[in-house]
Amino acid sequence: MVPVLIKDLLASAPDGRKVTVCGWVRTVRDSKGLVFIQVNDGSCFANIQLTFDRNNPSNNANVNEIEEELKKLNTGASVRAEGLLIESPASGQAVEVTLESLKCLGQANPDEYPLQKNKMSMEYLRDNAHLRARTNTFGAVYRMRNQMAFAVHSFFQERGFQYINAPEITCSDCEGAGEMFQVTTLSLEKIAEMGVKAGQGGMKIEDAHKIIDYSKDFFGKKASLTVSGQLEAETLATALSRVYTFGPTFRAENSNTPRHLAEFWMIEPEMAFFDLDDDMDIQEDFVKYLLNWALTKCREDLAFFDKRIQPGLIESLEKVAKAKFTRISYTQAIEDLEKAAANGAKFEFKPYWGCDIATEHERYLTEKIYNGPVMVFNYPKEIKSFYMKQNDDGKTVKAVDVLVPGIGELIGGSEREEDYGKLKAEIERRGMDESIYDWYLDLRKFGTVPHSGFGLGFERLLRYVTGMENIRDVIPYPRAPKLADF
Amino acid sequence: MVPVLIKDLLASAPDGRKVTVCGWVRTVRDSKGLVFIQVNDGSCFANIQLTFDRNNPSNNANVNEIEEELKKLNTGASVRAEGLLIESPASGQAVEVTLESLKCLGQANPDEYPLQKNKMSMEYLRDNAHLRARTNTFGAVYRMRNQMAFAVHSFFQERGFQYINAPEITCSDCEGAGEMFQVTTLSLEKIAEMGVKAGQGGMKIEDAHKIIDYSKDFFGKKASLTVSGQLEAETLATALSRVYTFGPTFRAENSNTPRHLAEFWMIEPEMAFFDLDDDMDIQEDFVKYLLNWALTKCREDLAFFDKRIQPGLIESLEKVAKAKFTRISYTQAIEDLEKAAANGAKFEFKPYWGCDIATEHERYLTEKIYNGPVMVFNYPKEIKSFYMKQNDDGKTVKAVDVLVPGIGELIGGSEREEDYGKLKAEIERRGMDESIYDWYLDLRKFGTVPHSGFGLGFERLLRYVTGMENIRDVIPYPRAPKLADF
Repeated sequence: MVPVLIKDLLASAPDGRKVTVCGWVRTVRDSKGLVFIQVNDGSCFANIQLTFDRNNPSNNANVNEIEEELKKLNTGASVRAEGLLIESPASGQAVEVTLESLKCLGQANPDEYPLQKNKMSMEYLRDNAHLRARTNTFGAVYRMRNQMAFAVHSFFQERGFQYINAPEITCSDCEGAGEMFQVTTLSLEKIAEMGVKAGQGGMKIEDAHKIIDYSKDFFGKKASLTVSGQLEAETLATALSRVYTFGPTFRAENSNTPRHLAEFWMIEPEMAFFDLDDDMDIQEDFVKYLLNWALTKCREDLAFFDKRIQPGLIESLEKVAKAKFTRISYTQAIEDLEKAAANGAKFEFKPYWGCDIATEHERYLTEKIYNGPVMVFNYPKEIKSFYMKQNDDGKTVKAVDVLVPGIGELIGGSEREEDYGKLKAEIERRGMDESIYDWYLDLRKFGTVPHSGFGLGFERLLRYVTGMENIRDVIPYPRAPKLADF
Repeated sequence: MVPVLIKDLLASAPDGRKVTVCGWVRTVRDSKGLVFIQVNDGSCFANIQLTFDRNNPSNNANVNEIEEELKKLNTGASVRAEGLLIESPASGQAVEVTLESLKCLGQANPDEYPLQKNKMSMEYLRDNAHLRARTNTFGAVYRMRNQMAFAVHSFFQERGFQYINAPEITCSDCEGAGEMFQVTTLSLEKIAEMGVKAGQGGMKIEDAHKIIDYSKDFFGKKASLTVSGQLEAETLATALSRVYTFGPTFRAENSNTPRHLAEFWMIEPEMAFFDLDDDMDIQEDFVKYLLNWALTKCREDLAFFDKRIQPGLIESLEKVAKAKFTRISYTQAIEDLEKAAANGAKFEFKPYWGCDIATEHERYLTEKIYNGPVMVFNYPKEIKSFYMKQNDDGKTVKAVDVLVPGIGELIGGSEREEDYGKLKAEIERRGMDESIYDWYLDLRKFGTVPHSGFGLGFERLLRYVTGMENIRDVIPYPRAPKLADF
């Protein structure tokens, strides 16, 4: 029989009806004949309290069984309990359950169970990632993750977008950058063997590459994990009008920082007939929608983050949710930063027109100068991707980044170059392999349309709305250099 | 300015207001001074009709511009048009737009545009997968895909499930089977070179493996793409109670069939405190929910599939949506099949107790014997996975498959073994590497609970609800042996 979730029990009227509670014990307190058991099932932050009054047990209480089972309970043990849902005399909880029967389903030996009550470090919990969802912090993180994911879908579904899936395995490379993971069914061990054999037989080093026959690899050629689904999303936006991806993306970047993951989830909407202004409008709407969703549907978990993880979090999210996003050109942003530097602001990297805006600059703009969310648009084309729409000035492209306090860049987007000739010339100018992009160029060759899109890293969003410091703590099983446990 | 989607225009009252239409031309018909342009934007199956009456143009019509732009229009061209939304005299459409202005945004040269009106084969469209979303069939497929994805999320969100993301890159192997893709940043070319060099230096073949140093690989050990997120989902279900994954999954199986993909999306719910009966209940609810969603929200696209792809589709889906799913044991199923075989049913594989139930058997059960959906439970343990809960008979495990007409197996699930000793013994009995599963065993060591789950291949579901024959045609960019284009 499926039990009612604790979040639903806690929201019920204390009408004295019999209920079943299933979950994991957080604490057991036994004082002067009164026993209190806090049980959590992860459906919400709060525990439900089971009470057993030895001196005045419930009429139908199976006293002997309860006493026997109580001996088995420690933090982490699992229980199935029955009792009556009544008003709680304790403060901070509306209802509690007076025990009628209790069954310990699985014990948790306190000498071995890794999650004891004493303060545990984030590193320690990362090493026990298979159990950390049972803690207050990670229960809250994962519930927020769930809510934010559904908010993403809801936002786009309400606006006539089609959810699409870009491929994970690809033979093209969106950014034209390297740092991709290779995917293969060729045996590395066998390649080594064949190499040794060939070397014994007198093969020259410069011929070693001949040993590798990609026609025998699973896909018949060299394949990698995708770094972005944008180009494929464009193929569907120029048919279905409004689409979005929401799926895993990979970077084999050797960055061991609290901000980088090798595997992360990206949201990449792409909209036909949207220009850069339309793109900025929907980005602003999207961020506000997500924050309002968090502020209304995740109040209990947010309160925890605000209290324990990042004081002031709720206020700062509320402020951005209500703000009008300031829109400034990149040129304006650089002028602002140069002026600030001249007036004594300390930057590790000196700002100048043409530079990439570093996180320190982004945060200075949004936190110090504009004191709120900022959208910076029209970036120098040399620091941006080949597919961005070129402005008439010959120097800038219709790119936009959304900056928010505490994080810096949250979203990056652009209007796409829809002119066949200009896009082709840009691919050539950059020395990219044009043959890989023939299908992408086809979108401009046949029925081309103005279109725009943007990307939001889901884990970056989660860091922002939870206040968690390390990005490895907002995804259940983080992947990073030397880290692929579980 | 963002245009109104055609699906919203078609649902509007023909009140004569001025509207903007953006989309791609399907057909242009020009007869006796009357011009009809069918425009589609992928937001729905239907086109909107633009009309231009040369003899009686709309008062504000920019006649010269319209005539000039009309010359540029062919199938596939993109347009931005303005006009008045009026009642359509034509049958089959409530509204149409009388043109006031017309702009061809992008032409589609009929000598080059791959999608011409004449009948195109599925193979041909697969070769042009970057454009196929512009056809009736694939527009409908992708809209169904979107609707079914959102139905999946809605079903679980309504029931208190948390959406979770299992890792894509893993160093463990859920099924204990092989056939995984290796993920690496080691250079295969370099390994070959090092091999040749070592061979020249006299290394023996049996030492060749020493050349490969996984401590230098990105993750510090050999890594692969996941074949299932179930084990990780279990870690979260035993903390959050009810969770589901919905993400890409990979099999490096060399199967070139209309039923297999190397990259596909899986839905894997996992529920604490659910036994096999609870698991079957929710599976039945889930299938019916998805079919009812399709039948109500995708009516127009379904009508197309019913007419052009699989006659009788709607009726067959309606029947399953209303049916009570028959539940029979594996032993019963085998008896049924043996009896059928004795009475002349022709099977490629003879059914017997202990055999894997093949697709031909599944379809015979659901189509011929029970004439409706069937759930087969309690399978022989030797043909099922190590993690399934063992029945007391010592021979069977609490597995269940859901079979539906036309497809066979749609869902596979089980109650999981929650007993630490039994699970450990089973891992040993199967000769599996226990050290990989220590974290999985921890779930049984600390606060173990009865729990169950199941898996649904999203593309299999889509084949079922669309009637599309080849699974490569229900995902935008299919990956299969020798196939990773775009």
